[in-house]
Amino acid sequence: MIATTPEPPYYVVMFSSIRSDDEQGYAEAAQHMLDLAREQPGYLGVESARSDGLGITLSYWQSEEAIVAWKRHAEHSVAREQGRARWYEAFTTRVAKVERSYSFSR
Amino acid sequence: MIATTPEPPYYVVMFSSIRSDDEQGYAEAAQHMLDLAREQPGYLGVESARSDGLGITLSYWQSEEAIVAWKRHAEHSVAREQGRARWYEAFTTRVAKVERSYSFSR
Repeated sequence: MIATTPEPPYYVVMFSSIRSDDEQGYAEAAQHMLDLAREQPGYLGVESARSDGLGITLSYWQSEEAIVAWKRHAEHSVAREQGRARWYEAFTTRVAKVERSYSFSR
Repeated sequence: MIATTPEPPYYVVMFSSIRSDDEQGYAEAAQHMLDLAREQPGYLGVESARSDGLGITLSYWQSEEAIVAWKRHAEHSVAREQGRARWYEAFTTRVAKVERSYSFSR
């Protein structure tokens, strides 16, 4: 569930969101976007959690070019439009360059 | 609940974790660390969510120096040690530079 990512540098898209009350079509679209992202060039992994109304999804990418290509993907563009129109009350998307990482496992 | 952050660039510490079964002292320590982080120079905000066992906490900072200073804080160091010894099954910490962001609000 914690993504296995390569040595930095690589990139992350952080999507922090608060959902609206409109459930229609959301779960299917969210799952389809995860499935589709996994097939994109440069995809490295994803982590997602939601509690008390706040959702956080982190997707990891090899390069900024990979992020831009995924942003321009036709189905992803349509889903984002629906997200703004119906599924989200508010969200912030941040793009960042991962510079270092440290993992612990028991 | 979505952190209000300034225009990039700024920094983020992404903490992705899977908890152990040991609950003793965890909730109090986690809350104390959030309270303490808020008082540190360069602190910009925090977002946190947990579901299906995966927790994600994003803390935002003005500079890498602010992150290093917080990492070296005595109480934070003790809490991290306890985290490795008792509270976490596994975690990954990533430090990244936020390069751009976009917000939507209904």
